[in-house]
Amino acid sequence: MIKGNLMYGQSGGPSPVINASAYGVIKEALNQNKTIENILLLRHGISGVLEENFINVKDVKSDIELLKYTPASALGSVRYKLKSHLEDPKVFTKMLEVFKKNNVRYFIYNGGNDSMDTCVKISEFLKTVDYEMYVIGLPKTVDNDLPLTDHTPGFGSAAKFIINTLMQVKLDSNVYPSGKVTIVEIMGRHAGWLTAAAHVATNEGIGPELVYIPENVFDIPDFLNKVEEIYSSTHNCLIAVSEGIKDKDGNFIGAMNSTVDAFGHKQLGGVAMYLGELIKAKLGISFRAIELSTVQRSASMIRSETDVNEAITTGKKAVEFALSGEHAKMVGLIREDGPKYKIKYLPVDVYKVANKEQVIPLSMIDKENNKMTQEFYDYIYPLIEGEYKQEYRNGVQKFFLLK
Amino acid sequence: MIKGNLMYGQSGGPSPVINASAYGVIKEALNQNKTIENILLLRHGISGVLEENFINVKDVKSDIELLKYTPASALGSVRYKLKSHLEDPKVFTKMLEVFKKNNVRYFIYNGGNDSMDTCVKISEFLKTVDYEMYVIGLPKTVDNDLPLTDHTPGFGSAAKFIINTLMQVKLDSNVYPSGKVTIVEIMGRHAGWLTAAAHVATNEGIGPELVYIPENVFDIPDFLNKVEEIYSSTHNCLIAVSEGIKDKDGNFIGAMNSTVDAFGHKQLGGVAMYLGELIKAKLGISFRAIELSTVQRSASMIRSETDVNEAITTGKKAVEFALSGEHAKMVGLIREDGPKYKIKYLPVDVYKVANKEQVIPLSMIDKENNKMTQEFYDYIYPLIEGEYKQEYRNGVQKFFLLK
Repeated sequence: MIKGNLMYGQSGGPSPVINASAYGVIKEALNQNKTIENILLLRHGISGVLEENFINVKDVKSDIELLKYTPASALGSVRYKLKSHLEDPKVFTKMLEVFKKNNVRYFIYNGGNDSMDTCVKISEFLKTVDYEMYVIGLPKTVDNDLPLTDHTPGFGSAAKFIINTLMQVKLDSNVYPSGKVTIVEIMGRHAGWLTAAAHVATNEGIGPELVYIPENVFDIPDFLNKVEEIYSSTHNCLIAVSEGIKDKDGNFIGAMNSTVDAFGHKQLGGVAMYLGELIKAKLGISFRAIELSTVQRSASMIRSETDVNEAITTGKKAVEFALSGEHAKMVGLIREDGPKYKIKYLPVDVYKVANKEQVIPLSMIDKENNKMTQEFYDYIYPLIEGEYKQEYRNGVQKFFLLK
Repeated sequence: MIKGNLMYGQSGGPSPVINASAYGVIKEALNQNKTIENILLLRHGISGVLEENFINVKDVKSDIELLKYTPASALGSVRYKLKSHLEDPKVFTKMLEVFKKNNVRYFIYNGGNDSMDTCVKISEFLKTVDYEMYVIGLPKTVDNDLPLTDHTPGFGSAAKFIINTLMQVKLDSNVYPSGKVTIVEIMGRHAGWLTAAAHVATNEGIGPELVYIPENVFDIPDFLNKVEEIYSSTHNCLIAVSEGIKDKDGNFIGAMNSTVDAFGHKQLGGVAMYLGELIKAKLGISFRAIELSTVQRSASMIRSETDVNEAITTGKKAVEFALSGEHAKMVGLIREDGPKYKIKYLPVDVYKVANKEQVIPLSMIDKENNKMTQEFYDYIYPLIEGEYKQEYRNGVQKFFLLK
């Protein structure tokens, strides 16, 4: 293989395990020191190429081992979306200049749909120039919405946090003889994987009575009927709802929920608050709205051991694939057949992943009963299995902080 | 000691460790089976006496060991506040009837300020009748606002969750080159202990830049100046704020934040949302408001080992005290002098605890710099030390559920 440097970047929203993937990349790249001379870590993703803002692993003063324990994006992320090299040739000329100057021969980009699109754009550009570089996409997203992979690193840990949090919130909301309706809003604007995970809590004996995912049409009268029925028999009701639920015409529920704040400005409330107001107004029941917000994607206190280990392996595989001459590929996690959960890692066509969203397949959804099928449970349980042990000092978690 | 039965009840808001105290009570009472014949667990606190709603431990089908791992109030809580026996003699006559009928000789009540008041009311009533019963209060509150005890079980775990969550949220909010102002709202309407804990995150290298507790007057212009100053230099700002911050006249900040919802109803927003709107309106900076809500008091995923063990011991001590003839006392946790953290458990006068709130002492607050003094750090670090190991099955926590 061509000798040279490896460049690694992070993009898209934070996740509990993207830095575990970074750890996997770095460890494997250090192992491959006959081919990889330097490992260059981009600051803020692709903008780090354009601004020549990256760090050589040799110059990192912090303990690389701590990357395994650290959520979010330790190297920084970016919202910048690349145009094609035909639309924006200057940007690509600049990138090529940086790649050449730094002898970058292996480029690994860690993110979701948009990040895979970045891999495609760079690959398309490379077809037009005489420069040998291997581009590999490394999947990351708590939303679990990438095609061609069984799941994405980050999903299992975020799901595990959400499930356990819902169990706790349910225990909490049960303590008074007459309680409230509690509505918990969960991330996932189009794909309902994280919200669907809430069913696991209920399946384990203590969870929400009602769960709403964007894959099903949300019907307000039916919703209110169900809430009233449950509340009148138990004086309590816990609801998990995706931020992305829509009505039959495809409009987001609560999108019209523009409240006027104390300063006379319109404020777009969350869907949990909207549904709570609806329940209060129509059923006269008091409510509590909880938005799990960024806490659900940044929680490392309780992560799936399976997920963290897979994130690390996925990082290692990205380096292996690049060094074996794979290009314009994403590391896919393919579940093997058989009774025991087992994953093999294969290079999949990044062109077929970019900009596509994998929602929950119909076979996993029991639409009529607002529940999930056994296929869904068989799918999700292995992904949340095990508890990755965090490192603590003085009662708080030890994290990797770029100095 | 008089032979008879022990009655135990839970009251007040849920906590991560009140069931660990219940575990301590039950284990010690089972040990003392020469004196204690039956252990009666009240459902929904004191209302369980009036409604004769309790369970004999012998009839509990669930695994008692799981109480150690289960947050909230496994036996149910209650909002009912007892009047005095002079004001409401019927209630006390009924209670006495139930105590006599069930030969209740030891009464242990687990809760906060109001619950200690219940102990006082029952003790006052017992002075007027010929019935031998020993009443012991067992402290519980995440708010840490009881006097005569160094701290209360529950505080350490809730503080540990808040500190670690703030670190994670800070990591998450840091990933983009230009971020938002993030405001996290924390429980504690009068005493700022939980919010002050946020300083520990910052002290450990990654936490909020600004922390506001109710013990200090909140000044809006000063607040906006500080936010602007921090944001203009770092393009980012994390703020931890107590739900109970007040202006110089003692009015709650945001109390006037009545927004009109989509149904034309007034909705009282949280202080985080109020401050966010203020920042958006006055400084033009976008914000994210996060209310930790009941998640902060029900999280068992990461609890302080010190706290859980103390909660269990406090339960055991309550039984010991009652059987040694103590009456109208609360179990106080007294910190011993010396370089090493050590707690001794002493009976303290429950009359001096009831209805009183212990705010943060001035010596722990550096008002001028909006920070805490070393005395505060020396106080709090031992309380969050260690991680209590939870039990998991299928990737989710195992909990005690009353069947």
